[in-house]
Amino acid sequence: MAPIESLLWRRLRIHQIYGANTDVGKTIFSTFLCNAASNHRGAERVAYLKPVSTGAEDEADTKSLEGIINQSSFSHIKRFAPSASTDVLYQYDIPCSPHTAALASGRIYPIEYLRTQPIPSDHALLRKIQNVAAEQAKLGHGWLFLETAGGVHSPGPSGTSQAELYAPLRSPVILVGDSRLGGISQTISSYESLKIRGYDVASVLLFQNDQYNNDGYLEEYLYKQGKIPVTTVPEPPARNSNHDEDNQALAAYYRNVDSSDKISKVVENLDQRAEDRVSQLQSMSERAHKTIWYPFTQQKLLSPNSISTIDSAHGDYFQVYKPQNDTESSDRPLLQPAFDGSASWWTQGLGHGSSQLTMAAAYAAGRYGHVMFAEAIHEPALTLAEKILQGTQNPRLTRTFYTDNGSTGCEVAIKMALRASRDRYGWDVNDKIEILGLKGSYHGDTIGAMDASEPCTFNEKVDWYQGKGYWFDYPTVNCTNGKWVVHVPEPLREHLGNGEDFESLSHVFDISSRSQSAVLDKYETYVQLVLEKLGKQGRKFGGLMMEPVILGAGGMIFVDPLFQRALVNAVRKSAHLIGNAQVQPTNDNDWSGLPVIHDEVFTGLYRLGRFTSSSFLGVHPDIAVNAKLLTGGLLPLCVTLASESIFNTFESDDKSDALLHGHSYTAHAIGCQVALESLDELQAMDTQGDWNWARNSNWKETAASHDSATTPEVWSVWSREFVTEVSQKTDQVSGIWALGSVLAISMRDADGAGYKSKAAAKLQATLKQAEPWSMHTRVLGNVFYIMASQKTSQEAVEEMQERLLHGLEQTS
Amino acid sequence: MAPIESLLWRRLRIHQIYGANTDVGKTIFSTFLCNAASNHRGAERVAYLKPVSTGAEDEADTKSLEGIINQSSFSHIKRFAPSASTDVLYQYDIPCSPHTAALASGRIYPIEYLRTQPIPSDHALLRKIQNVAAEQAKLGHGWLFLETAGGVHSPGPSGTSQAELYAPLRSPVILVGDSRLGGISQTISSYESLKIRGYDVASVLLFQNDQYNNDGYLEEYLYKQGKIPVTTVPEPPARNSNHDEDNQALAAYYRNVDSSDKISKVVENLDQRAEDRVSQLQSMSERAHKTIWYPFTQQKLLSPNSISTIDSAHGDYFQVYKPQNDTESSDRPLLQPAFDGSASWWTQGLGHGSSQLTMAAAYAAGRYGHVMFAEAIHEPALTLAEKILQGTQNPRLTRTFYTDNGSTGCEVAIKMALRASRDRYGWDVNDKIEILGLKGSYHGDTIGAMDASEPCTFNEKVDWYQGKGYWFDYPTVNCTNGKWVVHVPEPLREHLGNGEDFESLSHVFDISSRSQSAVLDKYETYVQLVLEKLGKQGRKFGGLMMEPVILGAGGMIFVDPLFQRALVNAVRKSAHLIGNAQVQPTNDNDWSGLPVIHDEVFTGLYRLGRFTSSSFLGVHPDIAVNAKLLTGGLLPLCVTLASESIFNTFESDDKSDALLHGHSYTAHAIGCQVALESLDELQAMDTQGDWNWARNSNWKETAASHDSATTPEVWSVWSREFVTEVSQKTDQVSGIWALGSVLAISMRDADGAGYKSKAAAKLQATLKQAEPWSMHTRVLGNVFYIMASQKTSQEAVEEMQERLLHGLEQTS
Repeated sequence: MAPIESLLWRRLRIHQIYGANTDVGKTIFSTFLCNAASNHRGAERVAYLKPVSTGAEDEADTKSLEGIINQSSFSHIKRFAPSASTDVLYQYDIPCSPHTAALASGRIYPIEYLRTQPIPSDHALLRKIQNVAAEQAKLGHGWLFLETAGGVHSPGPSGTSQAELYAPLRSPVILVGDSRLGGISQTISSYESLKIRGYDVASVLLFQNDQYNNDGYLEEYLYKQGKIPVTTVPEPPARNSNHDEDNQALAAYYRNVDSSDKISKVVENLDQRAEDRVSQLQSMSERAHKTIWYPFTQQKLLSPNSISTIDSAHGDYFQVYKPQNDTESSDRPLLQPAFDGSASWWTQGLGHGSSQLTMAAAYAAGRYGHVMFAEAIHEPALTLAEKILQGTQNPRLTRTFYTDNGSTGCEVAIKMALRASRDRYGWDVNDKIEILGLKGSYHGDTIGAMDASEPCTFNEKVDWYQGKGYWFDYPTVNCTNGKWVVHVPEPLREHLGNGEDFESLSHVFDISSRSQSAVLDKYETYVQLVLEKLGKQGRKFGGLMMEPVILGAGGMIFVDPLFQRALVNAVRKSAHLIGNAQVQPTNDNDWSGLPVIHDEVFTGLYRLGRFTSSSFLGVHPDIAVNAKLLTGGLLPLCVTLASESIFNTFESDDKSDALLHGHSYTAHAIGCQVALESLDELQAMDTQGDWNWARNSNWKETAASHDSATTPEVWSVWSREFVTEVSQKTDQVSGIWALGSVLAISMRDADGAGYKSKAAAKLQATLKQAEPWSMHTRVLGNVFYIMASQKTSQEAVEEMQERLLHGLEQTS
Repeated sequence: MAPIESLLWRRLRIHQIYGANTDVGKTIFSTFLCNAASNHRGAERVAYLKPVSTGAEDEADTKSLEGIINQSSFSHIKRFAPSASTDVLYQYDIPCSPHTAALASGRIYPIEYLRTQPIPSDHALLRKIQNVAAEQAKLGHGWLFLETAGGVHSPGPSGTSQAELYAPLRSPVILVGDSRLGGISQTISSYESLKIRGYDVASVLLFQNDQYNNDGYLEEYLYKQGKIPVTTVPEPPARNSNHDEDNQALAAYYRNVDSSDKISKVVENLDQRAEDRVSQLQSMSERAHKTIWYPFTQQKLLSPNSISTIDSAHGDYFQVYKPQNDTESSDRPLLQPAFDGSASWWTQGLGHGSSQLTMAAAYAAGRYGHVMFAEAIHEPALTLAEKILQGTQNPRLTRTFYTDNGSTGCEVAIKMALRASRDRYGWDVNDKIEILGLKGSYHGDTIGAMDASEPCTFNEKVDWYQGKGYWFDYPTVNCTNGKWVVHVPEPLREHLGNGEDFESLSHVFDISSRSQSAVLDKYETYVQLVLEKLGKQGRKFGGLMMEPVILGAGGMIFVDPLFQRALVNAVRKSAHLIGNAQVQPTNDNDWSGLPVIHDEVFTGLYRLGRFTSSSFLGVHPDIAVNAKLLTGGLLPLCVTLASESIFNTFESDDKSDALLHGHSYTAHAIGCQVALESLDELQAMDTQGDWNWARNSNWKETAASHDSATTPEVWSVWSREFVTEVSQKTDQVSGIWALGSVLAISMRDADGAGYKSKAAAKLQATLKQAEPWSMHTRVLGNVFYIMASQKTSQEAVEEMQERLLHGLEQTS
């Protein structure tokens, strides 16, 4: 089931005709447009497609719209725009919306070229439209008009509203306005419903009505909305009960209006807008290459050709401009879907262009705009704060601090932890206080967040970077040749042993069973040994900060969760080694040893399949940071959650003891409202079992077959069979893991691994070149990773698994 | 002209009735609701208000809606819901939308209690509605239903669409759905037009129609949109030409449906929702006090009472909950407007709840969601990058780097500058490189941005803060006792002289005239003296970073612009003192001496009246940072602009030489689209002369009367007369300045100035307590400041000036 591509060809102008209401004359305007387009310079052909037609639609046209049309839209066009080729995909005989018609009619009146099941899925319908468009494009230069049924939100056959259903096609819209009483409202509301789904309305057409003059108001209104032109034509002649006279009157009407040139000007304008759109797409990568300073990019190695021009994105797919198809003679589409395989830098949850998130954003924008947050509260900020605290099921976390992104949120976490430790242990403000962490960790690009990571490629050339911490080595996990291997690096083996193999991923996470073994003790003892050594060096540490389970930017490193658990255990027991054992925690939810910070920016909120990634370790951090998926992938927002004990550290009668951090848009209403909507949806999906296909068929049974029912549930949308198969390609692959929506493959690299490695780039390039849709991925040195959203279907994942297997073969 | 307060009383349930179309039965449902509300427990009275009525509306009801209603809505309610008190504010006799009716009729049929001009302004109409509601609330517990005219976007009398016009009232909406063919679409689109303006739709009512069954579809759809209940009642009886029989049939219809209890349940549900809304408002500050960790706030000094609960915000006003009015017996409104006097931390440009910005945000969300930005380009990011570069009219700036907020953008600026200097002067990566700046500067709360500021209250207790720079003292500007005084601090007088007085603000900014004097030389010489001294100490500097004209967070300090100009001049001449004079700039747009960074986060984009605040200095910086107003006040986004020469510094064949900075939501489409919309609007306002009332009457003539036409244009929305008057209160006020939309008053403070001072807090408190609307402001120590948006009217500013004068008297 290949993804849908947006409809854009160099030689074919495609427009969608929407009505602001039923009965506004869509078919009449379609007729005008077909005729005017036929006469437009360069047009070799004009086609008209009514994807879905119902008795209702036809009857409406027949009975009420000035009583003119006594045939279906389809046959009306055939008669009055004879030069247009016409087509209907689905026709129902019940006079109501296509949705009801499809459900109620139970049968279809097949048009001769109709090859389909009675109620097409949205995807099937879009695919058919796409095929018609592709055929038309092959036939020559011309125009294609797609006439929708009823109003913009009239449901399509599956029940999905048409505005929603057709949005991924991104055809410019001709909106037929309502010239009757109330028509201003209908037209503007319809316009808005289209616009907020990313449609471009290119033209508004309506009948002249001298009583209401809706066109005057609309003209002014829509000009302000992006110079959308409004055009009127006279109303069609009154009905005549004599069929032949009726047709003659109508033919005369069409001739008269055509001769006024009004519609020709509309077509000219549509042509110009379509031309501008393509020119814009053509020029964008060049202009971007000159104007944009790209993040995390060596621009010397970047050519305009390597910049993807993205026209839009829906669901999991970008629509990427294909310059190689953009020639005057080409009959190939200009846009191609590409799976957003980095989940747009690990942010996507509910997919691109989700109208659920759009509505949440727009509601908050309309209700508040942005409201300054110091000493003030608004509903989305409060509700979100409560919701996320509750969602963590961590009794320690009681406070929510808002910032704008993971990096700023991690800085806040660091400020919190350091102050708490300094306060408890009585260290001076001038004492150098460091962070305990893991090698390869990464917490963001602002200097404070950078300083919490060890020197590495990301920071070594950054002025003012100065790593402030001790970063532990640790055992890692990978699936290699069918086994889940806990690998202990050579230097640690004397302390931690030689590692273990497990039959399944669940066993790796079976912290309670594994805690029984001697391994946990070894891990903890080792950590305490290090702490003691560091203490003897006089070093002071103010917090333990880590990304639970997976170190993302560091290279998708899967850390043995038992080691992270041991690290927390050991630190919490070691106040005597770190600061001062005399100062005891005041209650069960107070921190001990050091505040534990979990950076869940990447790993939290269902990225790995669970609300918190801390739960994989069975650890309750004292501070936790969430961002990225927090807003479902729409816009920046971050929360740093903290315990009451940490919070209390900053309480004082002195204003300057407060946590003096805050951004102008702190807790902006849009972000909070979108995050609420997103978390609601993710939690509902969890509860409803929307991921059961992955949980059960892929992972659960396998795990159960090897162990008792007490094994913790871990799963991925990437199938266990697939992971096993790739892990057996030991010549190419040194290890693979999958968890939640993430898959990471460590490629063997003769040159040695690292951020600068190109080992995974070959696979990446192969996937990017695929036709008729491709996969857009990012790599981290020798690590190839791919990430689905939380809405990606099993089918899509399976297709990508095939692509990946094929890609690995091609690059072996 | 007091601002409008949202309609919320403890004892009065107010709902707005909107129709998904004309002719859907709004008046019939209003009748049902009035009757059911009358019987609802505790209701002492029910009122019905039709703010605007037209012949059209009535005729529509008469002729088409099943041909039932042969009176106006008003008299229909009188007859069939006799227990309701009824009211109409404006009635027009022309059968079309109120807008057209108002324009065309030329006269009004006044209802007895109508006291108004023929076409009321939006404000006058809202004020009347508010008065009716306030009167009703005085009369006892009960209900008020406001029936709108036509569809949701049918224009009101002034031409503003009703959905737009009534949004600030924020009454929950009863949407009367359309049960006819196409009605699903009309109902959903209408719902969306309301929702994106911040309305809460509490209930959807429509007629049963067994042919189309729109209710079934809508029920499912709207449940997903926030559990909005959908209720149907049978269609009213068919028309009867006999008037009496008609009325009898209708009376019977109302009785029958009433007895079904359906509408009682609707009323019960509305009551519950209204109760929940008030309970929510009641509890929010307590809950926030427990859950939120506030930015920049010493929470020990914060009680739930001091937290403002903000229900919504429109234009320049918050709607703030008033707990003191929230008692069972109170007849006072629960929400009060408060002018957003900090422009929500200096962000607001186009006002809260701007549907222009909402639509831009929603369009981008629908078209893209968020699209990852590395090696990719999308239209809003590219167009914005080009637009803002062009807007600066700075030939040096060619590159746009996106981040999420001013702090991250300043960090990026620092990284750029330091690398460029290090590269040119051949300094080692381990050399300590500092920043030149001004005392009291502030660039944000992340560690890197903090490090560029001198130690101060904001950072002195922050772990990992370590100031890295030299910060100059400088002359400041203030209006004192009617004169614009350039004040030179004592220690600088030997170098810079004793300062100057000017007759007008324009003269202070007359850089070209002032450059002729010896002062500029003195300034430059002094700077070079310092540079030489620093050089001798072996200190290395990588950039000059400053906020042009006004240091915001540092206390709204107005720096003598000539000094800032001199600083740039001197630095640009002093490669020999800073690094190495052998390395010459390669072209006119290359930096010399040091890269000059302008932090325009606060001062740019028309905050001070101009697109760039650099233009006040006549300086082209090499790097500039914009945020806050960039999105018109909606959501976080930042651009760091840089010259090609700075950009080239990072070009290399080595990936790790790139500027390795980037946030997940870098260049998020929503932010870019909103910024584009906002800049377009601000630039249009500039060009159209929307601020001429302030430019001309306030400032220009005065300036012209004192000097030639060559004096540069500087102006403020705060009037010169007002500034002068306040400046003369020398007992209370040590200085005042106004520029663009900003006004700052330095209060005399016996305890000594500073961030912890409470001198301005008294004035702030007085303004906060005002009735029936207040002013919400923030203070910076002894500095009281207030800021308008770019849409604030002259009238509003004048009212606030009066308030301020009065407040100063009260606190003297």
